[in-house]
Amino acid sequence: MAAAVQELYPGTKFGIGPSVENGFYYDFKLPRSIAPEDLYKIEKKTKELVGRGIAFKKRLMSKSSLLKLFKNQPYKLELIKEAKEKRLSVYQSDKFIDLCRGPHVKSGKEINPEAFKLTGIAGAYWRGNEKNTMLTRIYGVAFKTEKELAAFLKIQKEAEKRNHRMLGKKLDLFCFSELVGPGFPLLTPKGTIVKEELQKRVEEICRNYGFQKVFTPHLAKIELYKLSGHADKFNEELFRVSSPRKHNFVIRPVLCPHHAQIYASKIRSYRNLPIRYMESERMYRAEKPGEVGGLNRVYAITVEDGHSFCTIEQVKNEVKIIVNIIKDFYGSFGLWGNHWVSLSVRDRRHPEKYIGEKRDWDLCEKILKEVSDEMKLNAERKEGEAALYGPKLDFMFKDAFGKGLQIPTVQIDFATPKRFNLTYIDKKGKEKNPVMVHRAILGSYERFMALILEYYAGALPFWLAPEQVWVIPIGSRHEKYAGEVGEKLKNSGLRIQVKNENETVAKKIREGELQKIPYLLVVGDKEIKQKSVSVRERNKGDVSMMKLVKFVEKIKNA
Amino acid sequence: MAAAVQELYPGTKFGIGPSVENGFYYDFKLPRSIAPEDLYKIEKKTKELVGRGIAFKKRLMSKSSLLKLFKNQPYKLELIKEAKEKRLSVYQSDKFIDLCRGPHVKSGKEINPEAFKLTGIAGAYWRGNEKNTMLTRIYGVAFKTEKELAAFLKIQKEAEKRNHRMLGKKLDLFCFSELVGPGFPLLTPKGTIVKEELQKRVEEICRNYGFQKVFTPHLAKIELYKLSGHADKFNEELFRVSSPRKHNFVIRPVLCPHHAQIYASKIRSYRNLPIRYMESERMYRAEKPGEVGGLNRVYAITVEDGHSFCTIEQVKNEVKIIVNIIKDFYGSFGLWGNHWVSLSVRDRRHPEKYIGEKRDWDLCEKILKEVSDEMKLNAERKEGEAALYGPKLDFMFKDAFGKGLQIPTVQIDFATPKRFNLTYIDKKGKEKNPVMVHRAILGSYERFMALILEYYAGALPFWLAPEQVWVIPIGSRHEKYAGEVGEKLKNSGLRIQVKNENETVAKKIREGELQKIPYLLVVGDKEIKQKSVSVRERNKGDVSMMKLVKFVEKIKNA
Repeated sequence: MAAAVQELYPGTKFGIGPSVENGFYYDFKLPRSIAPEDLYKIEKKTKELVGRGIAFKKRLMSKSSLLKLFKNQPYKLELIKEAKEKRLSVYQSDKFIDLCRGPHVKSGKEINPEAFKLTGIAGAYWRGNEKNTMLTRIYGVAFKTEKELAAFLKIQKEAEKRNHRMLGKKLDLFCFSELVGPGFPLLTPKGTIVKEELQKRVEEICRNYGFQKVFTPHLAKIELYKLSGHADKFNEELFRVSSPRKHNFVIRPVLCPHHAQIYASKIRSYRNLPIRYMESERMYRAEKPGEVGGLNRVYAITVEDGHSFCTIEQVKNEVKIIVNIIKDFYGSFGLWGNHWVSLSVRDRRHPEKYIGEKRDWDLCEKILKEVSDEMKLNAERKEGEAALYGPKLDFMFKDAFGKGLQIPTVQIDFATPKRFNLTYIDKKGKEKNPVMVHRAILGSYERFMALILEYYAGALPFWLAPEQVWVIPIGSRHEKYAGEVGEKLKNSGLRIQVKNENETVAKKIREGELQKIPYLLVVGDKEIKQKSVSVRERNKGDVSMMKLVKFVEKIKNA
Repeated sequence: MAAAVQELYPGTKFGIGPSVENGFYYDFKLPRSIAPEDLYKIEKKTKELVGRGIAFKKRLMSKSSLLKLFKNQPYKLELIKEAKEKRLSVYQSDKFIDLCRGPHVKSGKEINPEAFKLTGIAGAYWRGNEKNTMLTRIYGVAFKTEKELAAFLKIQKEAEKRNHRMLGKKLDLFCFSELVGPGFPLLTPKGTIVKEELQKRVEEICRNYGFQKVFTPHLAKIELYKLSGHADKFNEELFRVSSPRKHNFVIRPVLCPHHAQIYASKIRSYRNLPIRYMESERMYRAEKPGEVGGLNRVYAITVEDGHSFCTIEQVKNEVKIIVNIIKDFYGSFGLWGNHWVSLSVRDRRHPEKYIGEKRDWDLCEKILKEVSDEMKLNAERKEGEAALYGPKLDFMFKDAFGKGLQIPTVQIDFATPKRFNLTYIDKKGKEKNPVMVHRAILGSYERFMALILEYYAGALPFWLAPEQVWVIPIGSRHEKYAGEVGEKLKNSGLRIQVKNENETVAKKIREGELQKIPYLLVVGDKEIKQKSVSVRERNKGDVSMMKLVKFVEKIKNA
């Protein structure tokens, strides 16, 4: 493809072109901007070149020869200068020669031109840094057979319909602003409802199991994270804060140290344990600027976090409580069962990657194994997947495309309480360190919202839908009754809208369907006479007329 | 007093000693740490020196002579070197000589030793900068008569009982951590309940008037605040954010630009207006390190903020709606009526201090005046009290000590929508700028919590109390019944605790009174037999036995 681009757009500067899942991309600085038609032209030319069956020949060259060879290619020059090796490889096919580590197919004969397609164009900063030039990235996929390509394209089309960024815009749930910056999503009123309904549900479940909410700041002295070990671990991702008044803080990359400080604010007795804190708040991580996008990778992460402080004897019960919370929460989405559990333990060959004592690690692993057995979780042992401070149970759910996603987790931590010198007075009056059990239920609200938007293709469950019911009057003379219906539904605690806009009923219904509104209620003369509403349920073709009170009852029992 | 300190503690280094409300302080680097007994000794010695009636003589000296005279006083040397004047004044009384701008009493004869008292010791960084040495600050007050001193001390004692820091600790509402840093309060589970109940109430009222919640990040590019004008205005207080990955952001000092960006994310029509956003979230301001303390001055400010975007014709109604919200919210505390309103307008002599056009300013002032008249607010016109972008109505309430506190505010803003190029399509299809109406109802949660804690001396109204009812069994055989009572109360939505601790009933009642629990229910044999509880209401001496159902009813109707 790169050879085709060189032929079609002389003067193009070449960036890098790695292989990725199912295909590849290549970043170019083109002499002019290109349109979708160009993509077709490039694809055609590429197929033609492939068809000639030209061989790809590898050669090793010294840096000095390479600097001469690529003297008009500034990006290649940058890569050559930075390379640690003395000699680097190039691949040549006919007239086209490119800096490339390989491996590579031997010749164009190995490529099936019918199973190959260019799939898109995007902008990408050179080396992913937004301070650098924006290059044009061309994506392509290559399969062995035409059939495989067709199957892949079909899945892609479905994925696009479910893409959370597109759905977020269509359903007006969140937005981004050039002035605020990418990686900083702004939730609109509708998106805020979804976030708050999720929060209400998870907090209600956690409260039933004894979790109490706390409220802590986003900033702290760096000393807090030096002591916890996170300053080291997150060094690159740690936002530093300063001011003209010479303040020096950092923004938290996790919540645990703040919770530990609330625990430390009082003398605790064994009678007070377990103490369970939870908080749904932001933390910030300095992700690579080229990698942020949508809700899946953001700087501003709203995390649903929680910690139990307990005695060693209570750990097992705490873990069980948290597994039950996970079961309750994911069960309410019908997702429980659609998962597997990882017992994530240390990499025994690299003990230096973890903090804490061997004895504690062994005990924790034993406890988690017992919980897995007693609760029939069937956890699979995964070496090297443990957290910094202890082993954990990770729950893997499948997304809309069947890919595994890790969200909920339970982690046992002996190390942090010792580092922060957290204590409680035991039965004998002796000071002891509690154990800290970390848990995430829905993880980050941003990622979770992306997940469920894609999972439901935007048709959120009734309780999560930002607008649950639209009332649509047929003509202007039905607006009064529509208003009364709306008022009654609102008083029943429903989120509704009365659609009085000057549009046809058909258009309002179509709009309601696009907006994935769970119920559309149409009202006209007949409905007024019978104190009824004509109900259109989302994704169900049929329309049924029913008394308003019946409809409210039906919804309340749903 | 400084002379007394010099006599008693030779080698003391002198900082500064200004006059403050009702008295003065002086910062010293003492050769040893001092205790309350020392304060008494210093007071005695000061009174003795005052009694001698020594004159205070002023002299002007050149900087070079001063540098010699104060060669052993490093803090004075620093001040002398920084002074812009060529000659500075000193005051001498007997052997003691001090750098002092004056004015000063002529002699000790003018001071009444019986109306003078040293009131406290505190630590204070030299020049308020936490990187500098910590000095010992000694506070004193001086009145004309002994009677005035006595009256002052009485108020002080009351204030101390109501001090929100002390109450926050006693009632376990919030804490600070040395590792997180001052200025960053951590709300405990109880404090979080108070914050959330306040939030629920204010949001419920605002929702009734059409406000919708949004959710926005704490960080943004500095460009956002350059455009809004806040980067200039808050330059010193603006926290800068960077990372090893070369990110550059700032932490928001206000919320308005984020709300403006949500408005800007869609095309708006006159039919969509007014649009009303609200959010209770943190903003951060880099206050001077020496000035942060308690909840009144913090870096992490949780602001209850909101903005209406409307047409010019709608402004007046928007202002009225917001005044009604303020009335509803403060009325629910019984504070409405205990206030006065300021119509805060420009300082006409300094138009350069404001942004926006004169025509808009005049119109806004006219609208606010009309609202004041029509709603009988009796607003007083205050020149120079306007916001950066427009005039406002400020509502001043009185705190526990009768001091005026400004919290709620309504501000009209023509400038920001123009700066951000916010638009809507009017009836004729033309693009127009909306008007932005800013409003704060409870202001910052931190300051508001400090205010109500001091106002109620910790005895928060029932709906705000983190624990509303304690159930106290008389003996261990009453614990089962106490548990049943607790369960029933919990199911009625009350925040309760069953006090099964192994303590006497008297001690539990005393503890409950200290914790300002609204209701203490004692249960024993008699109560079990009659399915009743013995109710002790806070601040009411009498105890009455009543059926449990009656008690629940009574509370629900309260």
